[in-house]
Amino acid sequence: MRKLLFEIAYKGTNYHGYQVQENAITVAETLQNAIELVFKKREDITGCSRTDTGVHANQYFFHMVTDNNIPTQAAVKALNNTLPGDIAVLSCREVPMDFHARYSVTAKEYLYKIWDNPLPNPFLDGLVLHARQTVDAEQMHCCAQEFLGEHDFIGFCSSGGKTHDTIRQIYRISAERKGDLVEFRVLGNGFLYNMVRIMVGTLLPCGAKVPQIGDIAKILASKDRKMAGITASPAGLYLNRVIYDAAFLTGGSCEIKKES
Amino acid sequence: MRKLLFEIAYKGTNYHGYQVQENAITVAETLQNAIELVFKKREDITGCSRTDTGVHANQYFFHMVTDNNIPTQAAVKALNNTLPGDIAVLSCREVPMDFHARYSVTAKEYLYKIWDNPLPNPFLDGLVLHARQTVDAEQMHCCAQEFLGEHDFIGFCSSGGKTHDTIRQIYRISAERKGDLVEFRVLGNGFLYNMVRIMVGTLLPCGAKVPQIGDIAKILASKDRKMAGITASPAGLYLNRVIYDAAFLTGGSCEIKKES
Repeated sequence: MRKLLFEIAYKGTNYHGYQVQENAITVAETLQNAIELVFKKREDITGCSRTDTGVHANQYFFHMVTDNNIPTQAAVKALNNTLPGDIAVLSCREVPMDFHARYSVTAKEYLYKIWDNPLPNPFLDGLVLHARQTVDAEQMHCCAQEFLGEHDFIGFCSSGGKTHDTIRQIYRISAERKGDLVEFRVLGNGFLYNMVRIMVGTLLPCGAKVPQIGDIAKILASKDRKMAGITASPAGLYLNRVIYDAAFLTGGSCEIKKES
Repeated sequence: MRKLLFEIAYKGTNYHGYQVQENAITVAETLQNAIELVFKKREDITGCSRTDTGVHANQYFFHMVTDNNIPTQAAVKALNNTLPGDIAVLSCREVPMDFHARYSVTAKEYLYKIWDNPLPNPFLDGLVLHARQTVDAEQMHCCAQEFLGEHDFIGFCSSGGKTHDTIRQIYRISAERKGDLVEFRVLGNGFLYNMVRIMVGTLLPCGAKVPQIGDIAKILASKDRKMAGITASPAGLYLNRVIYDAAFLTGGSCEIKKES
């Protein structure tokens, strides 16, 4: 028996999220179907994170225990020949049996893309939030810095989340303009249900109401979901980077940054 | 009555080409449905070109004669609020009644995108040709120069094309690497059915057979479809630029380059 760690990327538009569900096509089920064809046996797989319907991943990991001895490079190639074009296997490696795709994660980075040209871009449909008013990326960047450090994010969490511990730590956060796109990035030790989408919904201007320095600190202190903004569209959200404890990973760092 | 010229862009993945067909969703029919809602009347529209199933347009024009007096900017906004996210209206202007979206075209540029990283990119699915072997963009560029000038392109035309005149003129042609993408561009006075896709299929290496200097001239001279390569996938093809006689167009050039 060996434990394999797969690195993948996917466009989430046509999936009801990562996690297997009844009566809905998910990324996990699509992966399991491809694995069954390649490994000649249906295997359980364990993902690094849940993602919602329509959310994308530039980097995602899952592990699988198998007695199949297929070389890792052959597995990558065969899976890519089997999977639909919106899911790609980027790498596969053997990991120690005590490694866990979810519990061994030490940090994750999310990317959120906002397109603020008044005209739509048909090639970014489903891949960005189309903001109808211009975003001040510098102001967004400055306001976002108040999220840095350890906070109780209970006000930035949708009901339906299952965790009782709502304390999370944000290590790095930024907003940067690239042409008509604003890229918002947040690196933290963990994220509550819909947390990044509510952070974005709070940082974006809403009609005449433009977030000001001090607003985020106040909303965090209130611990009140109603004080925060809307939950921004899933279309702009990408799980961008997953960081594991290097001690687990032999043969090079597992932190492989893939950006679209 | 007035004649309006609309500039649009679309992702062709979900459409059976531009031209209206029975029992298939096309770009033209989707536009007519949106126009009917905005203009309160079903209008005929005339496009600048046919495009095949799955082919995209960074720039496309159609004209329409209407007695509706809606301001052009309001029409753009209302249509974009009505159309699906994979079709965007970029501009609208009044043109002389003797302007014709198709017959007034003086030149067109096509773009063909080839992705040659061995790993697939889920965000480019349907938007590129995924070449399984590395493309030598410089060699492709050099070989392509033999297409320049006036030639009989009958060997680079699929049966099903309706024209008898198979002479076309190529003004500019290039292949350029941008990271893992190779961008092939061709500007000409007109193109036969599947001509650009057959040009690409002939320029790409096929197994051990890599096109050499002199090959294209020989195939052109043969006027034999069987001498040319395969018809490359529609997924990589974009109508990229449509050029009209400037005499028709008041209020600024109509040559608006839009690239993804």
